[in-house]
Amino acid sequence: MFIETCIAPVNIALIKYWGKRDEELILPINDSISMTLSTDEMCAKTTAAACSTFKEHRMWLNGEEIPFEENSRIMRCLKALQCLALAKGAPTKFPLEWKLHLTSRNNFPTAAGLASSAAGYACLVYTLACLYGVADEELTAIARLGSGSACRSLHGGFVRWHMGHLADGSDSLALPIASASHWPNMNVLILVVSDSRKKTSSTKGMQRTVETSDLIHYRAKHCVPSRIKTISEAIRQRDFEAFAKITMQDSNQFHATALDTYPPCVYMNDISHSIAAFVHAYNAAIGSTRVAYTFDAGPNACLYVLQEHVSSLLPAIQISFPNDSADNVEYYKGIASDQLTQSAAEATDISLNGNTSLPIHEHNLLKYIIHTKIGAGPKRLTGKEEHLINTTTGHPY
Amino acid sequence: MFIETCIAPVNIALIKYWGKRDEELILPINDSISMTLSTDEMCAKTTAAACSTFKEHRMWLNGEEIPFEENSRIMRCLKALQCLALAKGAPTKFPLEWKLHLTSRNNFPTAAGLASSAAGYACLVYTLACLYGVADEELTAIARLGSGSACRSLHGGFVRWHMGHLADGSDSLALPIASASHWPNMNVLILVVSDSRKKTSSTKGMQRTVETSDLIHYRAKHCVPSRIKTISEAIRQRDFEAFAKITMQDSNQFHATALDTYPPCVYMNDISHSIAAFVHAYNAAIGSTRVAYTFDAGPNACLYVLQEHVSSLLPAIQISFPNDSADNVEYYKGIASDQLTQSAAEATDISLNGNTSLPIHEHNLLKYIIHTKIGAGPKRLTGKEEHLINTTTGHPY
Repeated sequence: MFIETCIAPVNIALIKYWGKRDEELILPINDSISMTLSTDEMCAKTTAAACSTFKEHRMWLNGEEIPFEENSRIMRCLKALQCLALAKGAPTKFPLEWKLHLTSRNNFPTAAGLASSAAGYACLVYTLACLYGVADEELTAIARLGSGSACRSLHGGFVRWHMGHLADGSDSLALPIASASHWPNMNVLILVVSDSRKKTSSTKGMQRTVETSDLIHYRAKHCVPSRIKTISEAIRQRDFEAFAKITMQDSNQFHATALDTYPPCVYMNDISHSIAAFVHAYNAAIGSTRVAYTFDAGPNACLYVLQEHVSSLLPAIQISFPNDSADNVEYYKGIASDQLTQSAAEATDISLNGNTSLPIHEHNLLKYIIHTKIGAGPKRLTGKEEHLINTTTGHPY
Repeated sequence: MFIETCIAPVNIALIKYWGKRDEELILPINDSISMTLSTDEMCAKTTAAACSTFKEHRMWLNGEEIPFEENSRIMRCLKALQCLALAKGAPTKFPLEWKLHLTSRNNFPTAAGLASSAAGYACLVYTLACLYGVADEELTAIARLGSGSACRSLHGGFVRWHMGHLADGSDSLALPIASASHWPNMNVLILVVSDSRKKTSSTKGMQRTVETSDLIHYRAKHCVPSRIKTISEAIRQRDFEAFAKITMQDSNQFHATALDTYPPCVYMNDISHSIAAFVHAYNAAIGSTRVAYTFDAGPNACLYVLQEHVSSLLPAIQISFPNDSADNVEYYKGIASDQLTQSAAEATDISLNGNTSLPIHEHNLLKYIIHTKIGAGPKRLTGKEEHLINTTTGHPY
């Protein structure tokens, strides 16, 4: 049996991907830019095993077996990797005909509504690439076939997915802009909010937007290109204020085009909008842009803040969004959970002095907070204890 | 003492006005189209009195005295009417120097968040025009100086506010498209929803949108003109399906541009979006577009539905948005309050059969419902008992 285990990160778009020009090849209508999050707090982990005795392709996701050969996106990724292995002409360690067993897990709750497919497909493709022994140059285009934004999870730091212009999608690739070490103090707080509404899936939502919204095409052609330039320059210069403004504007514009869809796609809820309003009020109270929000196709907020400002932001969040389990480790996950109460005094100052006071909301609007930061790309894990598949039985542990 | 009393209707925009090209003259960046609502259910009522003994201009709004000479919008309307009277050369019944007492009341709760300024300024201008004895041809341009959308309340039925192109705004006028009798069975249900959030005022909101949104300018130049054509034709042909679709699309696009503003303007809340989703689900269940929604700069829904379909729509609303005081006359206001329970059986059929079932929400998300319909423009009331000002004292009753 040949076996490989890898982890891959989550990425959060700063300039949003919304709308495909080719549904089959998953080619976007505009470039997008993302930041990769540290795998310490959130990642997908995949083990891929190949064995001459496996009768069929099988896959387990978060402990549940799921259809493999019927899943066209997984099969597309697999076929593309096998083609790549053939094209490279490099001898693979085992015949390509051998069946595979795959196991994948996210170390963060999928119920959180956090985009797990990007990390999942990036991890799948990266792990299979290790198994087949193919270099990682073309991998982003293959991950893209699984889930568009997965291509951005194959790099660390700040990543640009170039939409490309060729019909076959071969130039629709994700390339790094700057590594995690370029802006190492970039931290992220994910505010997971309570929500019960049924959402339109991203795939269906963006398809409907492209078909029915007048604004999305103007956005893709005229707004995004200049935003890509502006935020790339802000990242290069580590200009947080410029970075923050364009990030918030682009999140809002993405949700605006979703709303311009017919029937409309609504992903933010009242709590999401309250968080956005909190960020504007907090920045106004501080007198500079210290925090930025972005929202994907769901209600949870992703807040960008430099590490040195986290300890004054957290108590302000607790003032504005009081939570009865704020002292609970289950509420505050990730980096440095002791910071929550550390500088409550400073935050109280912010809310009490100054002309802009923070809005105070009812209790428990936030389910929990994940504190994480900028991080690197996928990693191959070499320790035998890392495998999710039992090398004797070929089945998941 | 010379005294006049008039009423003026509310109008609800179908193609939205959002954004001025001239803040002072209140000149819009695009045409808009509205439907005027019957004054039987909702109207502003204004009495204007002129007397040689009045020492100063005074005004009372809903019983409270408000500053008059300090209110630049009211003064602009007054000055423009006096200029018109002078320009006409017609002898006025009294010297233009005489001071005025004005009283205005809305017969609908202002707390409802329903745009009352349009009806209010339309009524003010119409009443003053009666008092000064000037013809009503140029009145829409004068009402516009008070509140942009007020110009549309000077006509009944369907009204188009032409943005105009002249710098002095003299061609920015509201003109009728079709009278109320053209589509007499056009009914409206206003769903007033619970809300506590502080909203950005329309004036400030649209100013910020024009300054910060990229999408608003594309909307004004490229989307609105074709929508104006499409809905005008739908109105002409009494094509409810076409009318409904473009109305919903334009409401969504207006809120999209508000969200594309920085910081964003958010007027719809979760309940508003649930109502929009209900309308789409209801139409899907029926198999044709029977209901349309539109939302102004607030969370309340305005539903368009033909009179013959009201009795099956109302019970469906009650199923989807159950209200404990549904039998209360305070909950269901306006036309034919006995229809609410009339055909519950039919609505139940809709929700139970078919593949699309209606979403069922928690109780009491709606504060109340106003049932009204298409209506005529402002009216001069001649009965002495109509006056809101005591002709002996010169003060409001």
